[in-house]
Amino acid sequence: MPAPRYDVIGIGNAIVDVLARTEDDFLVRHKMPKGSMSLIDETRAEAIYAAMGPAIEISGGSAANTVAGVASFGGRAAFIGKVKDDALGRTFAHDIRAAGVAFTTPPASQGPSTARCYVLVTPDGERTMNTYLGAAQHLSPGDVSEDEIAAASITYLEGYLWDPKNAKDAFLKAAKIAHQAGRSVALTLSDSFCVDRWRGEFRGLVRDGVVDLLFANESELHSLYETADFDTALRHLRGETSLAVVTRSEKGAVIVTREKTEAVPAFPVERVVDATGAGDLFAAGFLYGFARKMPHATSARFGALAAAEVISHLGARPERHLTDLARENGLPV
Amino acid sequence: MPAPRYDVIGIGNAIVDVLARTEDDFLVRHKMPKGSMSLIDETRAEAIYAAMGPAIEISGGSAANTVAGVASFGGRAAFIGKVKDDALGRTFAHDIRAAGVAFTTPPASQGPSTARCYVLVTPDGERTMNTYLGAAQHLSPGDVSEDEIAAASITYLEGYLWDPKNAKDAFLKAAKIAHQAGRSVALTLSDSFCVDRWRGEFRGLVRDGVVDLLFANESELHSLYETADFDTALRHLRGETSLAVVTRSEKGAVIVTREKTEAVPAFPVERVVDATGAGDLFAAGFLYGFARKMPHATSARFGALAAAEVISHLGARPERHLTDLARENGLPV
Repeated sequence: MPAPRYDVIGIGNAIVDVLARTEDDFLVRHKMPKGSMSLIDETRAEAIYAAMGPAIEISGGSAANTVAGVASFGGRAAFIGKVKDDALGRTFAHDIRAAGVAFTTPPASQGPSTARCYVLVTPDGERTMNTYLGAAQHLSPGDVSEDEIAAASITYLEGYLWDPKNAKDAFLKAAKIAHQAGRSVALTLSDSFCVDRWRGEFRGLVRDGVVDLLFANESELHSLYETADFDTALRHLRGETSLAVVTRSEKGAVIVTREKTEAVPAFPVERVVDATGAGDLFAAGFLYGFARKMPHATSARFGALAAAEVISHLGARPERHLTDLARENGLPV
Repeated sequence: MPAPRYDVIGIGNAIVDVLARTEDDFLVRHKMPKGSMSLIDETRAEAIYAAMGPAIEISGGSAANTVAGVASFGGRAAFIGKVKDDALGRTFAHDIRAAGVAFTTPPASQGPSTARCYVLVTPDGERTMNTYLGAAQHLSPGDVSEDEIAAASITYLEGYLWDPKNAKDAFLKAAKIAHQAGRSVALTLSDSFCVDRWRGEFRGLVRDGVVDLLFANESELHSLYETADFDTALRHLRGETSLAVVTRSEKGAVIVTREKTEAVPAFPVERVVDATGAGDLFAAGFLYGFARKMPHATSARFGALAAAEVISHLGARPERHLTDLARENGLPV
């Protein structure tokens, strides 16, 4: 097996976030379940945009945020995702490349425009998301480069890919190539509503070993095993996965293997400005450590550190170099 | 004279800021005078964008930031400026309207794209700007609505308008309408390089009473009177203006009338994250107070408060409601 060229290659929806601060009653008025990600069509996208306050545009997308985080730790990262060749698509491509991530998926020259996620940030820092998938849903198996997947230590996939049929096929193709090349496959469950939509298939991916490393937060885990009890959910998970990490916001994270569960604390944060990207950046740190063969607990510390950085400002990508931050906090980079 | 419909109408370049954090050596390598605003063409714009790091897009433009600030204080505000009917232009229009500012200038359907300002923010919080004027430079006297200008207590103009010939004509037309309607005209000198380009004409505007209220920072004032001595510059200014406010960063501001000069302190700021918009938001606060006939010193406190808010985060428009902030700080809103 040749030495990997990348630590992590991410496959996901290529999205630009349109972020605005809002009050809770805006969510109520527009029937948005707080903390959720809803898929919306273009008409609803325009209605939400017209109603929401002044916004900032900043590149996002779950797996894209994660690989940007890996690069910020000094890891070698690549991304596969679909934009259109429009202004927003060029913004997305600029930002991910400027973050040091290889990104070569050709943009669509026609069809719907680049995906946007309207992110409403309430005063408590919680984010509620409305995604217009646009061009992102046209990611197809043809966009998955066999050469790039085989060259990456870890192929990282977001659960959101399961929504459009051809993106799901791209997901499965990538997982197959990775395993044939002797590499690892990681999955994030994305959000609890996504798990609701695809529970059976996600459980199958974990049980059948299509996924070697699973990321979930508490509510996704509860949804996956349809229980409100954390310990019950954890017991189910231990029976089905070889390695998983469950993030629990300010309670830290739990590393789950067949042999044991291990709790890792969160990094303290002065004030949660915007929770967008917390899970994505936790995954970034853990994947970086995992690719570099560090102990799971150390990898989780990287994850906790990156999550703490990203929730202390607006936007889902790190503003500081995570290598510097890791060094300042005595982590081995 | 009918009661004004607006407190302030701003006329300026309609610009979307593309902001990235950078190190000082990036400025040196790309020959950018730190803290300046340089006008660039599309080729240079593309070269800078390709070289700069991951960015966020956020609506800007000096006078546009100011009227957004006025609205955030609860003032009635309007804006005149030119975008193209493209993605960035729609972003600009959304953001300024969502801030509560009336904006009816028709977008250009052809010609260059919406203006962009590449803002490089160094670790000290200082911003260095490179502006591609694009559609903004096609603002023309035809875009100046006589009805709107006559309905505003104050018409606020940015010095940057002096660069494109037809924008300058729009400026002069607006000033004339305002005075014929018995309203006030305010001008910000914009930046010291702009003053270098147009020193004689700007001095003429002040001396001849085309401008009733002048905003300048220290370096603009030094440039205007070609002296490195603050007191000398101030003496010149007092001889030529009826009312001016000179902002001095952390040293506060000086209110200048024929009769006296009065110093007003700055609001303390924990950490300057991004100095972009400090002058614009100072003007917002002062104009709000001035339009509501408050004492100059109170108006300057509004200005200092708004400036402090905007430099404590990325971007040149307030993130918090300035009315709330004013109330918390015991100011009369």
